[in-house]
Amino acid sequence: MTTRTLHLNAFLMGVGHHEAAWRHPRVDPSRALDVAHYVELGQIAERGRLDSVFFADGLAVGPNVQRNTQAVFEPITLLTAIAGATLHIGLIATASTSYNEPYTLARAFASLDRISGGRAGWNIVTSGTDAEAANFGLDKVRAHADRYGRATEFLDVALALWDSWEADAIRLDAADGVFADATKVHRADHAGEHFRVAGPLNVPGSPQGRPLLVQAGSSESGKVFAARYAEAVFTAQRTLAEGQAFYGDLKGRLAAYGRRPQDLAVLPGIVPFIAPTTQEARALEQEFTDLISPDYALRQLSGMLGLDLTDHPLDSPLPPIPPIDSIEGNKSRYQLVRDLAEGENLTVRELIARLGGGRGHRTFAGTPTEVADEIQTWFEQGAADGFNVMPPYLPGGLDVFVDTVVPILQDRGLFRREYEGTTLRANLGLEPHVNRHSSGLVTAALSAG
Amino acid sequence: MTTRTLHLNAFLMGVGHHEAAWRHPRVDPSRALDVAHYVELGQIAERGRLDSVFFADGLAVGPNVQRNTQAVFEPITLLTAIAGATLHIGLIATASTSYNEPYTLARAFASLDRISGGRAGWNIVTSGTDAEAANFGLDKVRAHADRYGRATEFLDVALALWDSWEADAIRLDAADGVFADATKVHRADHAGEHFRVAGPLNVPGSPQGRPLLVQAGSSESGKVFAARYAEAVFTAQRTLAEGQAFYGDLKGRLAAYGRRPQDLAVLPGIVPFIAPTTQEARALEQEFTDLISPDYALRQLSGMLGLDLTDHPLDSPLPPIPPIDSIEGNKSRYQLVRDLAEGENLTVRELIARLGGGRGHRTFAGTPTEVADEIQTWFEQGAADGFNVMPPYLPGGLDVFVDTVVPILQDRGLFRREYEGTTLRANLGLEPHVNRHSSGLVTAALSAG
Repeated sequence: MTTRTLHLNAFLMGVGHHEAAWRHPRVDPSRALDVAHYVELGQIAERGRLDSVFFADGLAVGPNVQRNTQAVFEPITLLTAIAGATLHIGLIATASTSYNEPYTLARAFASLDRISGGRAGWNIVTSGTDAEAANFGLDKVRAHADRYGRATEFLDVALALWDSWEADAIRLDAADGVFADATKVHRADHAGEHFRVAGPLNVPGSPQGRPLLVQAGSSESGKVFAARYAEAVFTAQRTLAEGQAFYGDLKGRLAAYGRRPQDLAVLPGIVPFIAPTTQEARALEQEFTDLISPDYALRQLSGMLGLDLTDHPLDSPLPPIPPIDSIEGNKSRYQLVRDLAEGENLTVRELIARLGGGRGHRTFAGTPTEVADEIQTWFEQGAADGFNVMPPYLPGGLDVFVDTVVPILQDRGLFRREYEGTTLRANLGLEPHVNRHSSGLVTAALSAG
Repeated sequence: MTTRTLHLNAFLMGVGHHEAAWRHPRVDPSRALDVAHYVELGQIAERGRLDSVFFADGLAVGPNVQRNTQAVFEPITLLTAIAGATLHIGLIATASTSYNEPYTLARAFASLDRISGGRAGWNIVTSGTDAEAANFGLDKVRAHADRYGRATEFLDVALALWDSWEADAIRLDAADGVFADATKVHRADHAGEHFRVAGPLNVPGSPQGRPLLVQAGSSESGKVFAARYAEAVFTAQRTLAEGQAFYGDLKGRLAAYGRRPQDLAVLPGIVPFIAPTTQEARALEQEFTDLISPDYALRQLSGMLGLDLTDHPLDSPLPPIPPIDSIEGNKSRYQLVRDLAEGENLTVRELIARLGGGRGHRTFAGTPTEVADEIQTWFEQGAADGFNVMPPYLPGGLDVFVDTVVPILQDRGLFRREYEGTTLRANLGLEPHVNRHSSGLVTAALSAG
């Protein structure tokens, strides 16, 4: 039996997850605009033997363009650029099922998977904002349930398309003039409520068979979707107890889909402020907090809750906010903000400071050993299979994690010193993908690759 | 006044444009599947100081999957991979206005333009086959005129989105907490027959302002579209006289859109078989012709004409084929095949051999000097601003062009020895893009960059 080990993803965002990172002296904000910055981040993550890097995404400029350093590149192209400068790191792009066509998106991911030698992952989102809807012909975002209905059908189509080419379909027989065995190239012939797609996909089978499937919604619909499809889940959990509850809930849902607990990795987010002493780490976090602009943060908070809070007094609690059933946007983020504000009885100023670090993800200020301890505790006490590491500032915050926390985790036998395989799926310890059309023999050939 | 010089694009396709290239001993067909092959081709083209490389594209597996080495990668991701391994070469991807959303596609090209430092180009197509339509919910391809109607509106939306961010919109003022000047970030607010798109685009202004716009349809609708939008046109012309007629026709249409002849480069295709003697070059071409599989070629021809010719006798002429007004697919390719067959009174076997080299593009077998002479003649006699070089086999056919023909063109003062600028637009000698929202001062700043 192999020892269970951690999986670590680097969630990359501009020059850092802290909303004021770009104003801090440790950061050069112009790097958010430079592809070389993101390539360097991929290389740092690979140096640290992390499983993957990941970009979130939205399909609109946010309401705070004057302070938004985030939306600069489209994730699939950006990860393709990183692919060429790295060999092992997994490459996870966010893309929407609401505003893409399955044929086009399945093809882009298959192409990235082929270009990267089997390192592509797809963080599946349904795009919950009205601003995004307005870029695709809609007055407002479709209802939450409708978005998940489309997402489910989208996945079924994409999965069929990725299985278009069996692993041994390509013959390359120049003498006989046979490039591919047409009997091993399959149509999808999908006809459903949202899509009609004939197939086959015009990218021959990629190294992983299909990209890693990732999901991050923690609403009820999100958890159902994750239990059915996801192989990794990013989640925001504030406390060990909440993390354990979420972990147990999600793992418990897998059997209903014929899946085992180890078929899905739960990766809570952590925003680590790391320094040689606890006191220095806390002081560093405070420096960032002090750079938050309240007017910007109030607009961000207004966007998360769908309420206009821009004139709300900073030292009062939140006004009463509507029940979650009444909203159609990002339900898990909404619930998280609400729990945070009400559960800890925070003023708006305090809430803004807490959200500023990582938009509701857990922030943690400490020494390398304290960060490693925290990761180990969650990992060993049933709250995590690893972490979604969200450096508050970049590249420095990733450098310090890789150079000081990773070696401790390695020394404790909790984290790899070298990559286990050549694909993202292999490094995550997942079974190779089995093409639905292949015989047992073909499956074995795939596994051997 | 600057001397007018040639522009050369390398049209890359799998292991070569000749349909039997992958069977020839000079070719390793497995390279069609390997991203390193395409990266090497980009580097060879850059070594030869070519303006750009280009990938055609379709959104379906062709009818001859058993002999199809072409559809392996999606072009935007593939060109992003080439971007990271090159510094100067332009990167032109084909993408469809019929099966993409303007917001998504405008963003992908802006991202590629940013990643490549201003080298992106878009070959705009409307996707003329029923097989593609069947991957996007349709029973058959939309009417030719409807596709061009959507394409025109698509371009108007994309152009508005690319102008979302003025060149000086990004402030990066950390002290004041101002990342961007919101008054210089503009919505599109487009509401038309096919699209409603709010904007702004969430990729800040790219180095070229927008990608180079390329077009390749030679139908009447295609020429109208090209005259309005295109900055480079790829075209298949069989003879100097036909090339001159097309060139004069297209250039003559520009004034109606307030454009000058030098605002659009006409680049006919040429498939060069190059060898030290004319006789060896012709023998080389014959070797490729001899590898054509008639049954495969008949299916290709059937697809081009929308007729089932698979049982037609090879040594008879084509049967009567329907008038061009009756078809809704790729009209310019249809017309070209028809003209070739009828104009030269070819049997089906002869037609297949002629089409096998480059699907109707001009093939030319000769010495490096003869190829250079041919290019110079077309360039100086009003038929071309340069050529779309379509090597019959790859990488060897591109290597030999770069190593033997390019130096002759350079020695004659017809072609650059070093790149003129840092962007594709600059190397093509085009004016910098002027953002619609910018003042004269801002435009000057853009030009200086």
